[in-house]
Amino acid sequence: MPEHSGLLTDLYELTMAAGYLQTGFDARATFELFVRHLPPHRNYLVAAGLEQGLEFLENVRFSSKEIDYLRHHPVFRHIRDEFYDYLSTFRFTGDVWAMPEGSLVFPGEPMLRIVAPIIEGQIMETYLLSTLSYQTMIASKAARVVTAAQGRQIVDFGARRAHGSQASLLAARAASIGGCEGTSNVLAGQQFGMTTYGTQAHSWVMAHEDEAVAFAKFLDAFPDAAVLLLDTYDVRSAIKKIIAMKRKPAGVRLDSGDLAKDSRWVRRELDRAGWNDVKIFASGDLDETRIAALLKKGAAIDAFGVGTALATPGDAPHLNLVYKLVKIERDGEARGAAKLTEAKVTYPGRKQVFRYSTPKGEYLRDKIALDDEPAAGGEPLLIEVMRGGKRTVPQVPVSDSRALCLANLARLPQKYRQINRTAEYPVIYTTDLESMLEKVRKRVRGSATRQSHGD
Amino acid sequence: MPEHSGLLTDLYELTMAAGYLQTGFDARATFELFVRHLPPHRNYLVAAGLEQGLEFLENVRFSSKEIDYLRHHPVFRHIRDEFYDYLSTFRFTGDVWAMPEGSLVFPGEPMLRIVAPIIEGQIMETYLLSTLSYQTMIASKAARVVTAAQGRQIVDFGARRAHGSQASLLAARAASIGGCEGTSNVLAGQQFGMTTYGTQAHSWVMAHEDEAVAFAKFLDAFPDAAVLLLDTYDVRSAIKKIIAMKRKPAGVRLDSGDLAKDSRWVRRELDRAGWNDVKIFASGDLDETRIAALLKKGAAIDAFGVGTALATPGDAPHLNLVYKLVKIERDGEARGAAKLTEAKVTYPGRKQVFRYSTPKGEYLRDKIALDDEPAAGGEPLLIEVMRGGKRTVPQVPVSDSRALCLANLARLPQKYRQINRTAEYPVIYTTDLESMLEKVRKRVRGSATRQSHGD
Repeated sequence: MPEHSGLLTDLYELTMAAGYLQTGFDARATFELFVRHLPPHRNYLVAAGLEQGLEFLENVRFSSKEIDYLRHHPVFRHIRDEFYDYLSTFRFTGDVWAMPEGSLVFPGEPMLRIVAPIIEGQIMETYLLSTLSYQTMIASKAARVVTAAQGRQIVDFGARRAHGSQASLLAARAASIGGCEGTSNVLAGQQFGMTTYGTQAHSWVMAHEDEAVAFAKFLDAFPDAAVLLLDTYDVRSAIKKIIAMKRKPAGVRLDSGDLAKDSRWVRRELDRAGWNDVKIFASGDLDETRIAALLKKGAAIDAFGVGTALATPGDAPHLNLVYKLVKIERDGEARGAAKLTEAKVTYPGRKQVFRYSTPKGEYLRDKIALDDEPAAGGEPLLIEVMRGGKRTVPQVPVSDSRALCLANLARLPQKYRQINRTAEYPVIYTTDLESMLEKVRKRVRGSATRQSHGD
Repeated sequence: MPEHSGLLTDLYELTMAAGYLQTGFDARATFELFVRHLPPHRNYLVAAGLEQGLEFLENVRFSSKEIDYLRHHPVFRHIRDEFYDYLSTFRFTGDVWAMPEGSLVFPGEPMLRIVAPIIEGQIMETYLLSTLSYQTMIASKAARVVTAAQGRQIVDFGARRAHGSQASLLAARAASIGGCEGTSNVLAGQQFGMTTYGTQAHSWVMAHEDEAVAFAKFLDAFPDAAVLLLDTYDVRSAIKKIIAMKRKPAGVRLDSGDLAKDSRWVRRELDRAGWNDVKIFASGDLDETRIAALLKKGAAIDAFGVGTALATPGDAPHLNLVYKLVKIERDGEARGAAKLTEAKVTYPGRKQVFRYSTPKGEYLRDKIALDDEPAAGGEPLLIEVMRGGKRTVPQVPVSDSRALCLANLARLPQKYRQINRTAEYPVIYTTDLESMLEKVRKRVRGSATRQSHGD
């Protein structure tokens, strides 16, 4: 798959691009990327995916073969060569401001803002939405799972449930930003410098005729790193076999059954053998709710592997991130743009988000302002990351984004961090923004025969 | 991203590989890929993703840099060089049987079966699960959406909601296999020869000061292909402006509001203008349930764009496909392998699935048998697709897989095709399989001190 192809977009972005060129509509546009509402069960989002977004913006190109494909597409029948010439030298030349990965984000707050020639901003929409919404969704879920584990390690096991191989890498990365300790995904480990985990599956035990032999052979190959899987046939007889061998494994893993009860039983057996340092890992359809319940029941589990829930969160399987035109500059004039259809209002104007804290650093509330409004004591969250199509900040290691997320979460009041109850963090708009929205409303009314749906 | 990297796997696959080599465990293994249960709201699955699976099997390699990464991984501390030498010349050499893409699949039925040296079969697990489960999930959802639309076109609009760019391509492809007419995803169109759709977004209208001017300019550029978007400000005033211009668009699109009511209203206005051939498209958080409800309410919609629901189906956001060791051949001896932990029993042995139909061709039931049991009148569903690591069948165009899916669905009795009620299609196991499972149970009991969890 060509990773930086300009065709990684919805067709309407390219038809609009052709339309702007052909009709001589030359404007600088500001697009902002945000969610209107949080998904169910969420009190906050953890921003992620910016790195892949910037990488795409820097490298996106149209190959001659791709341009040729468009030239023969029936929708472009009346489009002049000017369009194909434009695409052949296409580069993204815009400015980008964004919240760093690991930042906490709330509804209405732009995570990313692009100022660019309108055609460029338009073509980038689909890719940016896809990569930022996916990773933000995963990082946000991971933060909940990590919170539920109360300091125990969470390892991403999602590779087999992810939406293909690229999605598995992005999920491992985003889960790490949300606070996970590592991943089972080897390529993610190699590409992003993450710690990788995993030793044996049920198939190792099943492949050997005898379970005890299977354990012994594995210890032969991995004398100091073997984590033996207990539940292929029967957990209790498995742990007895291991102890009878008098060969201490690094850990044991439970992947099914009553994890709370079995883990306590296994812990007792291990301790009785004097193996207090043998770790107990658990996996098998875990999520933040199940982990919280297990710990409440006194499960003796040292680390959790979480797969499906991280790669494809069932309680909030998508994030409705939107990418909206908020400002147009053309022929020396600037004006705010807004969508006004009921229930889907977009605030016009280029924005900044300010976060207010108590003197001790605990987050109080956010304020969304126009970017040229005075700051007034809040911390601005959007920073410049690209100017004229070139990065203005270095690439951030995943471990730094993870540290930022954990530091931010520590400053978020407890009531927003709880996993089983929703609480709305206060986000307000400045009066300047409210009055700008009113101005756009009036302008649109002026140029339209306004008719409500009830007419 | 290296697309065919051997590191696209869970770490435990590689530790087991190293373990098999180091302990001299040389066996030929059969793995089968299947679901134990259907996801909620599903009566069947549509197999998809085989093509990407085979492409990976043919091309997977370990680069020297990747091998070096493993060499320095602490888990492999005691592993001998033999392992790295093995990886440096690694090729998949196994045999693969599978159901063609577009086939209908039911629980317990292997969609794919691999017979290979155990190490190879093991390393391939993660990639195969990921690509087949994702595409099968999407194709299965698409088939429901297409069914609900009763012959009206469904176009995949999921690119911005997909889990990254590769996932967007795979979703477009799988949606097409499930019966969708086309996609908004331009790269998917170019790579898979699919029809692409899309003309303008709200931003085109918002970028222009005046909505009527925005429509006129778009018609200038796309005189015969423009689909004008009506709901940026107000649907009814938008359609009046278009008709007043006396320039007929190819179509109009509604993306929000009361789609049933608005589409009927728009249809009347268009017909009154003599524009009976102007198509009405609808989009905006649609799925099979909403589409069925719209059509029941008499919506005048000719085609639907479906995004989020196709790329990330909320009602069944993951598919618990499993990949299980079912047979081991070693030192001239063969035996079935099975996992026996309660609620997760796997049937041992290499299997074939037979489908039985009425004389008129309507599907009656399936039978899962050992692959050397006599067929007895049913149609075998698994076919050989790879032998010794080489494909034995040509690549199948997406349009052929789509045709197969639609033909299969037409043969499925109506009660299983309905989208709002579950009905269980009959799948039985042969007595040979049942008795083989019993044999494995006895063998495992013999070698273990069996203890139930209730002890």
